[in-house]
Amino acid sequence: MIESKIKDTVRDVADFPKPGIIFKDITPILKDAALCAEITQALAERLSGVQVDVVAGIESRGFLFGMLLAQALKVPFVPIRKAGKLPFKTIQQACNLEYGSAILELHEDALEAGQKVLVHDDLLATGGTVVAASKLIQQLGAEVTAFSFIIGLDFLNGREKLEEFRPLTFSLASYR
Amino acid sequence: MIESKIKDTVRDVADFPKPGIIFKDITPILKDAALCAEITQALAERLSGVQVDVVAGIESRGFLFGMLLAQALKVPFVPIRKAGKLPFKTIQQACNLEYGSAILELHEDALEAGQKVLVHDDLLATGGTVVAASKLIQQLGAEVTAFSFIIGLDFLNGREKLEEFRPLTFSLASYR
Repeated sequence: MIESKIKDTVRDVADFPKPGIIFKDITPILKDAALCAEITQALAERLSGVQVDVVAGIESRGFLFGMLLAQALKVPFVPIRKAGKLPFKTIQQACNLEYGSAILELHEDALEAGQKVLVHDDLLATGGTVVAASKLIQQLGAEVTAFSFIIGLDFLNGREKLEEFRPLTFSLASYR
Repeated sequence: MIESKIKDTVRDVADFPKPGIIFKDITPILKDAALCAEITQALAERLSGVQVDVVAGIESRGFLFGMLLAQALKVPFVPIRKAGKLPFKTIQQACNLEYGSAILELHEDALEAGQKVLVHDDLLATGGTVVAASKLIQQLGAEVTAFSFIIGLDFLNGREKLEEFRPLTFSLASYR
């Protein structure tokens, strides 16, 4: 099963990036090409029947499976980046993270009004990043239709924050 | 032809990230799913006959096609990141960039001695980043066997810096 494979492969790193945090390191997953293919397929399968016009991936780790998923679904990929990284005209949103805060940006021509957008990141923690990403998407008149994650830290209750956007939310591997 | 498609799709952004720089914005490429598939295939084709055990992608834009290429070649993907982003034990290299400088990191268990590594980034400018990435790879006893880029700013002479590593170097679209 994909969930147990992911959990068996992810590496826990203690005290990163701050003391007391146990970080889920996905680099051992990236080293397993067959597992990466399975993850991409599992993400796509969970989205069958859901209209996805665009995959938006959150910098940087959301670029990895976000791009693979966009290609699997044969739809455009749109990067959501930290402030100062996107070269063209952008819109901005501040977000509160599990540790610290950040500003996210989206190109103002990244989406068309009415497009159905899947937001992808590698991991759902407190949900601050994806909430900010969703606001950016809505600012452009597009709609968040699903959130996908490889790993969900469900004990941090990020899902509750995502309910206001009312899309499908799923993680392939959940820690309760 | 892939080169003209890429050049027709990339967007020039003037004065980013600094006055006088004309930045090649690849986000219009990412919005074209069919072109992304063609690029991935073209990268893989250019590598036919070259042994690639691992694709190393440079944060952040090198993650995009780096991950797609690793999956196309069915080999592991290893992220090379800016300092402070990788959670496990790392090795470091400083690099000089077209504008500014940075420190790159690689997990110390990312590669095995003797592995043949393709280094991927979206764009070759002065070559400072890929030189630092190559030194990291060599520090772990692995070998850089190829450099691949979507775009080469050949007028900045980055290729010359890469000659000491003697691998195959190619860009799908070159600006002379």
